[in-house]
Amino acid sequence: MEFSLEQIAGILGGTVDGDPTQKVNRLDKIQEGQPGGIAFLANDKYEAYLYETAATAVIVSENFVASKPHTATLIRVKDAYTGFTTLLEAYNQVSRGTLVGVEEPSYLGENSLVGEGAYRGAFSYIGKDCVLGEGVKIHAHSFIGDRVKIGDGTVIHAGAKICSDTQIGKQCVIHSGAVLGADGFGFAPQSDGSYKTIPQIGNVVLEDQVSIGANSTVDRATMGSTLLCKGVKIDNQVHIAHNVVVGAHTAIAAQAGIAGSTTIGAYCIIAGKASIVGHLKIADHTTIGGNTGVIKSIKKSGQTLFGFLAMDLNHFLRSYSIFKNLDDLQKRIRQLEKKR
Amino acid sequence: MEFSLEQIAGILGGTVDGDPTQKVNRLDKIQEGQPGGIAFLANDKYEAYLYETAATAVIVSENFVASKPHTATLIRVKDAYTGFTTLLEAYNQVSRGTLVGVEEPSYLGENSLVGEGAYRGAFSYIGKDCVLGEGVKIHAHSFIGDRVKIGDGTVIHAGAKICSDTQIGKQCVIHSGAVLGADGFGFAPQSDGSYKTIPQIGNVVLEDQVSIGANSTVDRATMGSTLLCKGVKIDNQVHIAHNVVVGAHTAIAAQAGIAGSTTIGAYCIIAGKASIVGHLKIADHTTIGGNTGVIKSIKKSGQTLFGFLAMDLNHFLRSYSIFKNLDDLQKRIRQLEKKR
Amino acid sequence: MEFSLEQIAGILGGTVDGDPTQKVNRLDKIQEGQPGGIAFLANDKYEAYLYETAATAVIVSENFVASKPHTATLIRVKDAYTGFTTLLEAYNQVSRGTLVGVEEPSYLGENSLVGEGAYRGAFSYIGKDCVLGEGVKIHAHSFIGDRVKIGDGTVIHAGAKICSDTQIGKQCVIHSGAVLGADGFGFAPQSDGSYKTIPQIGNVVLEDQVSIGANSTVDRATMGSTLLCKGVKIDNQVHIAHNVVVGAHTAIAAQAGIAGSTTIGAYCIIAGKASIVGHLKIADHTTIGGNTGVIKSIKKSGQTLFGFLAMDLNHFLRSYSIFKNLDDLQKRIRQLEKKR
Repeated sequence: MEFSLEQIAGILGGTVDGDPTQKVNRLDKIQEGQPGGIAFLANDKYEAYLYETAATAVIVSENFVASKPHTATLIRVKDAYTGFTTLLEAYNQVSRGTLVGVEEPSYLGENSLVGEGAYRGAFSYIGKDCVLGEGVKIHAHSFIGDRVKIGDGTVIHAGAKICSDTQIGKQCVIHSGAVLGADGFGFAPQSDGSYKTIPQIGNVVLEDQVSIGANSTVDRATMGSTLLCKGVKIDNQVHIAHNVVVGAHTAIAAQAGIAGSTTIGAYCIIAGKASIVGHLKIADHTTIGGNTGVIKSIKKSGQTLFGFLAMDLNHFLRSYSIFKNLDDLQKRIRQLEKKR
Repeated sequence: MEFSLEQIAGILGGTVDGDPTQKVNRLDKIQEGQPGGIAFLANDKYEAYLYETAATAVIVSENFVASKPHTATLIRVKDAYTGFTTLLEAYNQVSRGTLVGVEEPSYLGENSLVGEGAYRGAFSYIGKDCVLGEGVKIHAHSFIGDRVKIGDGTVIHAGAKICSDTQIGKQCVIHSGAVLGADGFGFAPQSDGSYKTIPQIGNVVLEDQVSIGANSTVDRATMGSTLLCKGVKIDNQVHIAHNVVVGAHTAIAAQAGIAGSTTIGAYCIIAGKASIVGHLKIADHTTIGGNTGVIKSIKKSGQTLFGFLAMDLNHFLRSYSIFKNLDDLQKRIRQLEKKR
Repeated sequence: MEFSLEQIAGILGGTVDGDPTQKVNRLDKIQEGQPGGIAFLANDKYEAYLYETAATAVIVSENFVASKPHTATLIRVKDAYTGFTTLLEAYNQVSRGTLVGVEEPSYLGENSLVGEGAYRGAFSYIGKDCVLGEGVKIHAHSFIGDRVKIGDGTVIHAGAKICSDTQIGKQCVIHSGAVLGADGFGFAPQSDGSYKTIPQIGNVVLEDQVSIGANSTVDRATMGSTLLCKGVKIDNQVHIAHNVVVGAHTAIAAQAGIAGSTTIGAYCIIAGKASIVGHLKIADHTTIGGNTGVIKSIKKSGQTLFGFLAMDLNHFLRSYSIFKNLDDLQKRIRQLEKKR
């Protein structure tokens, strides 16, 4: 896996500022670059590293102008970050390889169909009446319940559990330990203070290109579907309760939680550990900060909210800066009271 | 699976307001009802949907009076919600079927006993010296360690891990990815700043009718037992630390965490992402709001607490509403200081 | 497994205050002690239990002076807590036994080496090109991806997932359901509002004596390594994002989360549900309280921080106590305004 800078410039549609016959065999961070490595510089904050790095080559944007001497050969491309991402993808494909076929023992239930080019790892379990598309990768220890549908090119990582009746679109990625389709938390309080279980007969539906992080949970609907629309990206240890709908291209960071029957709009960003109570509607393009608690619907799109109970970000920060000085404020009131 | 409205009214002990020979084959939400479906109306807020729904039938309470025309046939029962739940249960039993027997490969350790009518899924692991009751369902990929006891009718969903010495009562449900009996987080600080592991030799005990959500964790006790009493209901991604006791019929919502050696009373409600520090006692019938942090024992029962550090709910909301206006308060103090 | 008090005193290097021929066969908590049990008393708060306990023996520190009569025989040792921990360790080793060998079916990929004295449980999966040291315990349902290295004496509990290229040191413990090496949450926003996946080609590295709790997640680096240094102890349901570095002997309690590329110092304590945003540096010996949010780097070591946005602990508590009385403060300002 050694490439000349000329080959790489060819792949990226760029040009080499220096000797195009030099070879690289590794992707490096610019601040940790070593001979034989190729790094990238897309953010001005990192420019100083260009003049220190020992990497053989650095990918930069076409109009970049160096302000000091450097030993690394520059490869100029339209957008340095996109160019480097292209290399990452190529590297990833080669290094992880292409898994095809079946490792034994594995379990395939009655009437289940698996498309061409699929992989089923050892100890994977597929229930009955399932339909898995072409090139689907079911890694070791994955559980696929009955009547599950999985679209072409979707990857189920080791030990993810896809419970019965779940429908997953194309090119989705479900990371290890994620659980899709466990029963929603539905219990009816009885007159004696105990709870009666409310059967959860709905399912979970993921549209195309949805990603679910490690150990996240998406519960099945009581009736109908818990729905994650196209392109939704969910980080690790996120909880999505029953009957939630998450709009297209919304991203939800680690350890956030969405309570039952809430509808999140499209293109939202929900930061880590944020929580949204049940039965709300969140407008498109809403940004919810880390640790923020949302207890009311958000009707106006495009807002950035933050705080123990969500409010405008800057408003919260101003209030919090005064909160830090409440001791002083209290003293000043005492002074005023005395001198009155 | 098609039933006449007469048959359904018979099951529910209700009456049909219209043609009892009509057939339904599906449970619908009233707002999404289609011909062939049966829905329910228990909450006045949803009444408008009755006049729009295309569902064939809607279950209502016996004294319901419609204020507009509707096409759905009404089935009148004592309590619409309970009636519908009964249908959900019946539907659930039929659609999920009754799993019995053993799928291979599976692992059963020495001296372990499994009761009549049990199910053991493929790749399930049961250690040695275990006793599993009648009708227990051990789904695929479940791990049952050594010396575990599981009562009649309990269901262990796919990939749940029940570590050694755990005792689980009757009619419990453990959802996928839950871990019962991992070691408590016990480390003794050493003089050089490192930690020495404190062996955790206790276990986890669940009484009857306890439910544990997906990817939740209940750690074993250092000594003695971490105990969840009868009817406790725990949502997804909840963490219960070593030596915690949770009283009967307490419900704990997603992503809440209870630190070591805390005792929670009976009939409490602990909302999502709430956290309770170690070595506290929480009185019966306490309600703890979402995201709330509890750092002191709660002695008086029946309180509703909320806030970054728990305080009375209404008190917190009042303080928070002033927090939002701290900027204004600060200005008014400045004004007073100037004009003095 | 019955021992005389003389034997136990011998093991612990202590002395028996009473009949050394008495026998015990069980470790008890002092408050729940019964005949045949041995308990310990290390904390003055528990002294009252000594005068009530029915335990046969209680381990105390050598200079302990009883203030009342008691029936339990005392075993005096240098440090009661350490002595009892030694007994716990011995008990744990005997009761859990020593697992060696292979349970079938199990999966071992090409070119993977497993050291002497190792255990591989049923349904464990080891990919290709792995190197596992001596005495490594790979419990049932564990997943070990390709090219993983695991040092001598490390234990991987049931159903933990160690993804490809992860490196784990010696004497580490990975609890059930933990996921090491899932892809970092890296997505590049596109001009149409959708996201493009950024391949994550780095790995996860754990040095020696690291412990990871049940259902915790440590993501692989985008490039380079996510690194947990020697002796780091991590509780359940903690999330460590891509490219994070955690310094030696830092402890992180349950449900805390560290965002991408943040570097935590050595000897820090991070309490439950704390969260730290990305790209920060946290100084050595920092203590971060429960639920605390950290959004700025911490440069001075030795601080104790707390609050929705981290500030000095005592400062926060003072501000919060005034927050509780904001209603009163607001009234006083109104009074001042009226009487002016």
